[in-house]
Amino acid sequence: MARLRIALAQVNPTVGDFLGNRALVVEATAKAAASGAQLVAFPEMALTGYPIEDLALRPSFQQACGRSLRMLAADLEGAGLGGITVVVGHLTPPPAGSPDRRGHNAASVIRSGVVVAGYAKHHLPNYGVFDEQRYFRPGVRTSRFRLGQAEVALAICEDIWVSAGPLSHLAQDPPGLLLILNGSPYERNKDDVRLALCAQRAQELDCAVAYVNFWGGQDELAFDGDSMIVARDGSVLARSPQFVDHLLVADLDLPDATHEADVTLPVPPLANAVTATVAAPLSDAHEVYLAVVTGVRDYVRKNGFASVVLGLSGGIDSALVAAIACDAVGAENVHGVRMPSAYSSEHSLADAADLAERTGINLRTVPITDMVDAYHRGMDLTGVAAENLQARVRGAILMAISNSDGHLVLATGNKSELSVGYSTIYGDAVGGFAPIKDVPKTLVWEMSRWRNDHARERGQTPPIPPNSIAKPPSAELRPGQLDSDSLPDYAELDQLLELYIGGDVGAAELVERGFDPGLVSRVVRLTDAAEWKRRQYPPGTKITPRAFGRDRRLPVTNLWREPLG
Amino acid sequence: MARLRIALAQVNPTVGDFLGNRALVVEATAKAAASGAQLVAFPEMALTGYPIEDLALRPSFQQACGRSLRMLAADLEGAGLGGITVVVGHLTPPPAGSPDRRGHNAASVIRSGVVVAGYAKHHLPNYGVFDEQRYFRPGVRTSRFRLGQAEVALAICEDIWVSAGPLSHLAQDPPGLLLILNGSPYERNKDDVRLALCAQRAQELDCAVAYVNFWGGQDELAFDGDSMIVARDGSVLARSPQFVDHLLVADLDLPDATHEADVTLPVPPLANAVTATVAAPLSDAHEVYLAVVTGVRDYVRKNGFASVVLGLSGGIDSALVAAIACDAVGAENVHGVRMPSAYSSEHSLADAADLAERTGINLRTVPITDMVDAYHRGMDLTGVAAENLQARVRGAILMAISNSDGHLVLATGNKSELSVGYSTIYGDAVGGFAPIKDVPKTLVWEMSRWRNDHARERGQTPPIPPNSIAKPPSAELRPGQLDSDSLPDYAELDQLLELYIGGDVGAAELVERGFDPGLVSRVVRLTDAAEWKRRQYPPGTKITPRAFGRDRRLPVTNLWREPLG
Repeated sequence: MARLRIALAQVNPTVGDFLGNRALVVEATAKAAASGAQLVAFPEMALTGYPIEDLALRPSFQQACGRSLRMLAADLEGAGLGGITVVVGHLTPPPAGSPDRRGHNAASVIRSGVVVAGYAKHHLPNYGVFDEQRYFRPGVRTSRFRLGQAEVALAICEDIWVSAGPLSHLAQDPPGLLLILNGSPYERNKDDVRLALCAQRAQELDCAVAYVNFWGGQDELAFDGDSMIVARDGSVLARSPQFVDHLLVADLDLPDATHEADVTLPVPPLANAVTATVAAPLSDAHEVYLAVVTGVRDYVRKNGFASVVLGLSGGIDSALVAAIACDAVGAENVHGVRMPSAYSSEHSLADAADLAERTGINLRTVPITDMVDAYHRGMDLTGVAAENLQARVRGAILMAISNSDGHLVLATGNKSELSVGYSTIYGDAVGGFAPIKDVPKTLVWEMSRWRNDHARERGQTPPIPPNSIAKPPSAELRPGQLDSDSLPDYAELDQLLELYIGGDVGAAELVERGFDPGLVSRVVRLTDAAEWKRRQYPPGTKITPRAFGRDRRLPVTNLWREPLG
Repeated sequence: MARLRIALAQVNPTVGDFLGNRALVVEATAKAAASGAQLVAFPEMALTGYPIEDLALRPSFQQACGRSLRMLAADLEGAGLGGITVVVGHLTPPPAGSPDRRGHNAASVIRSGVVVAGYAKHHLPNYGVFDEQRYFRPGVRTSRFRLGQAEVALAICEDIWVSAGPLSHLAQDPPGLLLILNGSPYERNKDDVRLALCAQRAQELDCAVAYVNFWGGQDELAFDGDSMIVARDGSVLARSPQFVDHLLVADLDLPDATHEADVTLPVPPLANAVTATVAAPLSDAHEVYLAVVTGVRDYVRKNGFASVVLGLSGGIDSALVAAIACDAVGAENVHGVRMPSAYSSEHSLADAADLAERTGINLRTVPITDMVDAYHRGMDLTGVAAENLQARVRGAILMAISNSDGHLVLATGNKSELSVGYSTIYGDAVGGFAPIKDVPKTLVWEMSRWRNDHARERGQTPPIPPNSIAKPPSAELRPGQLDSDSLPDYAELDQLLELYIGGDVGAAELVERGFDPGLVSRVVRLTDAAEWKRRQYPPGTKITPRAFGRDRRLPVTNLWREPLG
């Protein structure tokens, strides 16, 4: 039995930022070394950021990956960190002259300034948001190395979701520790699934499992970290909190390796013992809230913005987005704009002012009536054309402020609206980022209530005006308009959408399950017909198992009509 | 030696339109039977349309595919077409209860109302615009059947681009005829590549090759057909013209099959002989022009629109798009809008009027000065904010006309502009479709000159005003502005972009190849920085080997900066 101290570095790398990502690795390695860890592991593709999409196929980028790995090894050695074993994920360039332009999604083991072992991901997910068979060529070998008396095997993300492949090889002769590097995006409740999977694999293989995942936002994906270490009996030894930088350190008692290994690395002795921590799980609303905050913060920060602007209607969606923005970039960097029209109610202006007062964001008012009138003088517009015009004038105002002041525009639409096409393209749909794009309306309310409760528990002012939560939703594009005039109750709508969009349940089966045929027919038709608008909608953080965008790819030109029976 | 008469049905199916696609198959089969053909072949996924994207995974759609194939067999028999052998591409649902939700991209052989043989595509392309490993499970068996004395083997599209797999099996014991069902999107010069490939495979296998492809537009893809039959010596026996409905009929003298087959279908005797036709190849400009016309026509028609609207600046881009729109949907259904500002030149208005007169499109003028002034009264806007505002007012006007009158808005931006971000999001970028999105500026001029020459050759009025072709390009967003103020010569820019975007050539290599380092640095930076705008740009027809959109997937959040050396 050998005792090994391992550290899992839950870092937040940025796509393409080789310099910054190397610095993250060196910094966390120094911290791990200081804690006495003998091994420190970094997530999948930590050196490049993830997902890098078609950059994976560009020769200049591939060469930079190769250089960056060599520089990292030298940097670690130069920083006096050659004595700790570092495992890091990166892209391996394809062999020179290969007709297949794809490299490996790989892990390298670095010690004393040298790459001493490596592994290439076998199972390349090609579903949901993943296109890894486009970007990478599959690995074919397993990889093990000896660390003192213990044996460590490597795997990358999808490899542990599939029984065949590396896991079935390892099962024949289990290592002491299976170390898995991950780039696993956040989805609601996925933390429970991950833990169950790690526990299952630990028991099947009869070995400890260490799972390291990064955190942070990358375009439409948020990563929550949730790094963990599970004992061979499936019990949790250590677990990182979600959505933060974290170094998870634990001592593992591992069986002595029973046979020779190609690579054996000596380990310095352990002077003391550490107590591993197990982070408490978050509530669903808390977790989702942090996911969208992370998405906004990293989209803003990593794209070089310092501030955001959004339209404040007085409604719940823009209020929630404003609260999220405050938590992401600070209230002083959030600019709210009230843009009243002839149809705006008194409470719209008052509720937006209440929001600004509660949160401390910057508030500005630009009435749209004069602009709208100018269009009406030049053109004859009625009905939907006139309604949409108001939304488009507001969009132009927000973009003008963005162009003038350099703020990123946040779109405030929710998933329910986006599903059935209740948004005006080039109107309320303008923006660089759409924080609650994947949040159904019912969850918008739930998150808002949670955020206010969270503030109250901490003795802070609840950011979201109670009236914005309580009042019936309205787009206010004509007098007295309410969402409920033309949409069913959001509770029912969201249930239906969750099945149709999230579950690929067809219309006939929805009717079989008890939904009204007329409602099914209408909602399915509206959803299908809005595909063209969704294509032009800004990116926003995925929080459900099936978000719009790369997660759900449908043709715009599409004469398929779901039969009702 | 047996003589077989085959017909290749180059049809234009629509995604999801089972009823319409079945009707196309029955109609073309009747025509083939009337010409005495013993076998008629339809393209890949002809029953469903192609590509169907995630519809491939939806159970209700999969069930409809199964039903539709059975109904087709019955329809053919019912129409008295049971005596002709029909080969058609479709989706096969996965087995009931399969954990893998993917079905096969398949071909079925129908005779006398019964499916007598089938084939599932082996090689599933997962690069470029293709995600077939997401949508389909690979086939594992080859498929042959006897038609009288001749033996026919089946393959689907990518299967003949790869030597391993079905082709290597067939090579051991070649059939008389290899029949390939295709869904091969148009790209410039791809017709030459296809012919060379078919000839190569015919010679390698020592058998005749029949290649049937569909034509038409589907979102960002145009399909050109280009169906062909190649003899075992690699010579072309018959070839369909591109971008039209066509039934290619030919008599083939095929060697007698030398061994038993699972399926042997009798053939009615041939009474006479047919003379196969070989369509003359089109010029490059002609071919590209037809591709974009097809893209617009089918986007409009298949999405249920009857008319289009676009802004007319007097410049070459909008003039070319107007000409394309006229050829796609008829001048009477094209609505041009002049939207002069304070900075619009006299010639802008005159050139747009000239265009309308030449083409006969509807022309309307909506000055923007009053609207722009209204924004300036409500906000303090200068510089880029003021420039973009003009474009956004124009965008709002076009969308208002679209909402009022039901026209589809066409965006008129070209690929060079879209590359370097010289377009205003929510301004000139508004639209349901962007016909020349993948056409570089230099090709815009070439296509315009070609279109005018083509008109002259036929004694018609050249549609594009010579002044729009001759004058220097300008966005006219400030006094005296010219594109050349801030961009290099388009000939040089397009060369550079073709290498960077089309060829994935990094900045350092561009400098090595002789481009000015300052220019490379600027163009690469502009191109990278415009990714977020491209994500929200309307779809448009792919004509190059690497279009924006699904063909080139890059992160928005991306700190990778191409090193210059």
